Amino acid sequence: MADLPARTEIGVTTGPIRGSRKIHVGPLGVAMREIHLEPGSGEAPVRVYDTSGPYTDPEARIDIKAGLPALRRDWILGRGDVEQVQAREIRPEDNGQLGPDRSGGVEPFPNVVKRPLRAKPGANVSQMHYARRGIITPEMEYVAVRENLGRERLAEYIRDGEDFGASIPDYVTPEFVRDEVARGRAIIPNNINHPESEPMAIGRNFLVKINANIGNSAVASNVAAEVDKMVWSIRWGADTVMDLSTGRNIHDTREWILRNSPVPIGTVPIYQALEKVGGVAEDLTWEIFRDTLIEQAEQGVDYFTIHAGVRLPYVPMTARRVTGIVSRGGSIMAKWCLAHHKESFLYERFDEITEIMKAYDIAYSLGDGLRPGSIADANDEAQFAELYTLGELTRRAWAQDVQVMIEGPGHVPMHKIKANMDKQLEACGEAPFYTLGPLTTDIAPGYDHITSGIGAAMIGWYGTAMLCYVTPKEHLGLPDRDDVKVGVVTYKLAAHAADLAKGHPAAKVRDDALSRARFEFRWRDQFNLSLDPDTAEQYHDQTLPAEGAKTAHFCSMCGPKFCSMKITQEVRDFAAKQNASADTFLAATSTGTETAAPSEAAALKGMEEMSKVFKETGSELYMGAGGREHD
Amino acid sequence: MADLPARTEIGVTTGPIRGSRKIHVGPLGVAMREIHLEPGSGEAPVRVYDTSGPYTDPEARIDIKAGLPALRRDWILGRGDVEQVQAREIRPEDNGQLGPDRSGGVEPFPNVVKRPLRAKPGANVSQMHYARRGIITPEMEYVAVRENLGRERLAEYIRDGEDFGASIPDYVTPEFVRDEVARGRAIIPNNINHPESEPMAIGRNFLVKINANIGNSAVASNVAAEVDKMVWSIRWGADTVMDLSTGRNIHDTREWILRNSPVPIGTVPIYQALEKVGGVAEDLTWEIFRDTLIEQAEQGVDYFTIHAGVRLPYVPMTARRVTGIVSRGGSIMAKWCLAHHKESFLYERFDEITEIMKAYDIAYSLGDGLRPGSIADANDEAQFAELYTLGELTRRAWAQDVQVMIEGPGHVPMHKIKANMDKQLEACGEAPFYTLGPLTTDIAPGYDHITSGIGAAMIGWYGTAMLCYVTPKEHLGLPDRDDVKVGVVTYKLAAHAADLAKGHPAAKVRDDALSRARFEFRWRDQFNLSLDPDTAEQYHDQTLPAEGAKTAHFCSMCGPKFCSMKITQEVRDFAAKQNASADTFLAATSTGTETAAPSEAAALKGMEEMSKVFKETGSELYMGAGGREHD
Repeated sequence: MADLPARTEIGVTTGPIRGSRKIHVGPLGVAMREIHLEPGSGEAPVRVYDTSGPYTDPEARIDIKAGLPALRRDWILGRGDVEQVQAREIRPEDNGQLGPDRSGGVEPFPNVVKRPLRAKPGANVSQMHYARRGIITPEMEYVAVRENLGRERLAEYIRDGEDFGASIPDYVTPEFVRDEVARGRAIIPNNINHPESEPMAIGRNFLVKINANIGNSAVASNVAAEVDKMVWSIRWGADTVMDLSTGRNIHDTREWILRNSPVPIGTVPIYQALEKVGGVAEDLTWEIFRDTLIEQAEQGVDYFTIHAGVRLPYVPMTARRVTGIVSRGGSIMAKWCLAHHKESFLYERFDEITEIMKAYDIAYSLGDGLRPGSIADANDEAQFAELYTLGELTRRAWAQDVQVMIEGPGHVPMHKIKANMDKQLEACGEAPFYTLGPLTTDIAPGYDHITSGIGAAMIGWYGTAMLCYVTPKEHLGLPDRDDVKVGVVTYKLAAHAADLAKGHPAAKVRDDALSRARFEFRWRDQFNLSLDPDTAEQYHDQTLPAEGAKTAHFCSMCGPKFCSMKITQEVRDFAAKQNASADTFLAATSTGTETAAPSEAAALKGMEEMSKVFKETGSELYMGAGGREHD
Repeated sequence: MADLPARTEIGVTTGPIRGSRKIHVGPLGVAMREIHLEPGSGEAPVRVYDTSGPYTDPEARIDIKAGLPALRRDWILGRGDVEQVQAREIRPEDNGQLGPDRSGGVEPFPNVVKRPLRAKPGANVSQMHYARRGIITPEMEYVAVRENLGRERLAEYIRDGEDFGASIPDYVTPEFVRDEVARGRAIIPNNINHPESEPMAIGRNFLVKINANIGNSAVASNVAAEVDKMVWSIRWGADTVMDLSTGRNIHDTREWILRNSPVPIGTVPIYQALEKVGGVAEDLTWEIFRDTLIEQAEQGVDYFTIHAGVRLPYVPMTARRVTGIVSRGGSIMAKWCLAHHKESFLYERFDEITEIMKAYDIAYSLGDGLRPGSIADANDEAQFAELYTLGELTRRAWAQDVQVMIEGPGHVPMHKIKANMDKQLEACGEAPFYTLGPLTTDIAPGYDHITSGIGAAMIGWYGTAMLCYVTPKEHLGLPDRDDVKVGVVTYKLAAHAADLAKGHPAAKVRDDALSRARFEFRWRDQFNLSLDPDTAEQYHDQTLPAEGAKTAHFCSMCGPKFCSMKITQEVRDFAAKQNASADTFLAATSTGTETAAPSEAAALKGMEEMSKVFKETGSELYMGAGGREHD
């Protein structure tokens, strides 16, 4: 296990993912990962989408005190529509240092930008604004190359899937990206003050994405450990990361994360605003909230969860729920509304918020503050009342060319999942849907990455653009490093299952390459093609640790002499040996429909010859001990 | 962690499941588990389906050398249609002792029945035969009581679900069970020589069941450890167990398992038959296979996987597959067919096999020897050609009143899952479907309990009656104790998610009870209601180990002062405090359709009053550190 990834002396996890090498494609140097297979296999390398940034690139020099290179800086400045402004001054309360105890601070990031960017007066720097004016930005070009992954092999594939009305193209062109962003069906979340981010798209005509949540530790004395939560998440495939920190040091921690993150970072600004008023929801004001938006906008947060759909009249709808309001942001706003008997200031001031968003190109993630927290509460009136309000807000944001995605549930039994997708598409004009699971049963705490992975795969298939992960610790405790990895890999497999089912062009390339490796007993290729090569190899080695077993033509489930794949290989080899070509051998299979029985006469004729040759050429079959999973 | 289950000095895991007590209901003493909730909660105990047998009953005395009590013996004898016969003599090859090395034997079970039961000449002792003659057996009565679990609370529920044409009754009567068995839509697998089994039904109008596979160890010197694999599987919820042992000691190991198993045991007899011919598939004969059926029938195996659908003409259809034939039984038969250029003797002799089955009431599990082993091979011609042959065989078995279920895939992307269910229903006349997963992507070895749990939940929803588990070690190595537990719990949650989505009456009872416990911070109730109370508590304690934290009104995700559930509770309490009743408070919610916005005027009026009271009665809101999963 010597080459398992480990946190280096710089405190974050670096080193290539097992069996992969980082490549940079095209003039923009779009980052991808290439998995090279055994030279003797005749298999082409498999390119996979890569979210891990420079951390997995042995050529890159990582220095978290310097941050990542500003990939997009020239693109942003080149558009000529931004200006540098004096940064808002950082106050003690930005780091939650309101009370008497001021210990536990983290060191500030060494090179904070003193003059962040903002749109020039009257300008709108959102990708949607450019898209609607017909401009293809480098960000859109980057996305096109990135998403096309594997499509060079599309010719090998017949497209096959059910996409429920999506419009996934054979090839993604920059123009297609532009068009999707222009009509609001996709977003490219990247704040102009987060030039370190590698552009990515969230939309149902692109690959399904996943988000991982991280949060600060109660005592965050080690900034590298905080940064590593993000690095570890993206290593395993998180497309975006939400920093849900509360309490102490959140401003400084966020700065460290942003400066070192190649993926978009999302936040829930109401959390920090609440800290600034000592945790008293009723004391929240528009001014404090607005100030927090500016603070985070200047740092470079790429999308904000805004619970503007929790309107005063919807709050009583939750009173008879089994689990009431389970969204923290939603419950804060519900309490504010009740206490003041006023409509939510997030709703009332929505257009003003949008003005801020467009000056930095921050995307909305319209929060589902009233999402169901239990099977009992799924698809209820409160949930859908809010959803239709999110649709109204989407149109208002789009009126200012600001990018929007819509957050979704939650806890939903399988038969109620599709209605969520259908209503979201209808209510929100195809703005990308971003769901938390959904969990398909409440009875498995400790396994909620799985209860929710089921719902996530399904709703991803139906059209959800990004899946927010759930870890095994959901409802029970704080996820540790292993939990985060399990959560990310589970969601990655759910997203991929969705891509396959949607018939995403060439999504099958990786499945097929892995299955061929499995069939041909190329164990290392099987490990390297998997979402988690380390765990795959570790599980294999628990039963058969010897190096030789990695090239052995059998596996431990059935032992060396009792292997169906080996027998099939023998059957196939036997067929190849005789003069009849594979095509003749296969003649019997070309009898038409899937369900009809084959032409038995044709098959029998071929079989008769083969039976003879089979016996002559030797038909040794080894079988013996072992036996577990298959029958 | 002192009260985690552990293997006792007798070598198998005993002791109650945390928070549960065993109960026996009605005159037949149908075993169930009852979860008692905190006395102050006002919650009724929750009854759950229990597969764990006497091992979780503190009153039961476990002695694996004696075996379990013969619950059904009097029922079987009372029907007057069986006779005792001289048992077939056990030979060395029954235990795989063919070669020169005869070490590693396990001790024989001490009290092997010397004169097993068999139907009297001309009699048919299958449950289907009784059912078709209008007889309600005690087995059917047992099943009715067992399945009715929770239905006494049905009046609290509005049935809600999508069952795709199933016919799930509000209450299960013995007559309903009889009718389902008579028409072949359900089976009650229990060999008359396995009287220790607690009757259970597999059928799409009953609760979705799960199967766990176990196999012998290479050196099986400890019989208790072999028995414990079964005991451990049923503790966590396996409804049936398949013994897939090969090689040494399989006859004696099977005897130990059967005598101690309260759940039906399935096998794949071709494995043992193959051992008897030294592992040379071509040397298999009908006589040896038949002898093996008798051997296992007399021991009490409840269902046999028979790969009679792997017909000679279908073999070439697999030649161009990515992963060929992945079923061991299927590949053995394919090789036999090719080598002899003959139709499979399982197919040719099918009616003779059925004669044996009906003399012991063994159910068929018609094996899908040509199931797909990769996404690439899903739903291909070979797979469906075999499925339609299984339909033909179903009708032939039913002609002799023998119970049948049908095995299904395998590896299937989500969009191709439903076709499997639809074709199975059509081809096999609604005989119960029993699938392995299916796995919805190939790229996550190490996580295939999850890739398959997704497919299992979906196909269970669509109508599959039993789901064969997959462990995290699938494709990689041999599952250990932890893997088996994770596999069983994953499949249990998938089966429950399916029951919920089908609208199974009162399936929601447990979800709702757990969600209320969650909302009310009854931590122990939440643990005890979960599928795996030990893991739930352990995860909780990793973050907040103190005993006090189990009664605390918060959890570690958001900390003591930042909890949406707490806020909702405050909102609700606040509403209760004022004079307005909950009904008045809720007036605003009664505005009709799910999607319409509520009557704002009505809501605002209520809100105004409440706002006033809220401020007067104190609206303290504590928030602070922490924060992870939710937003």
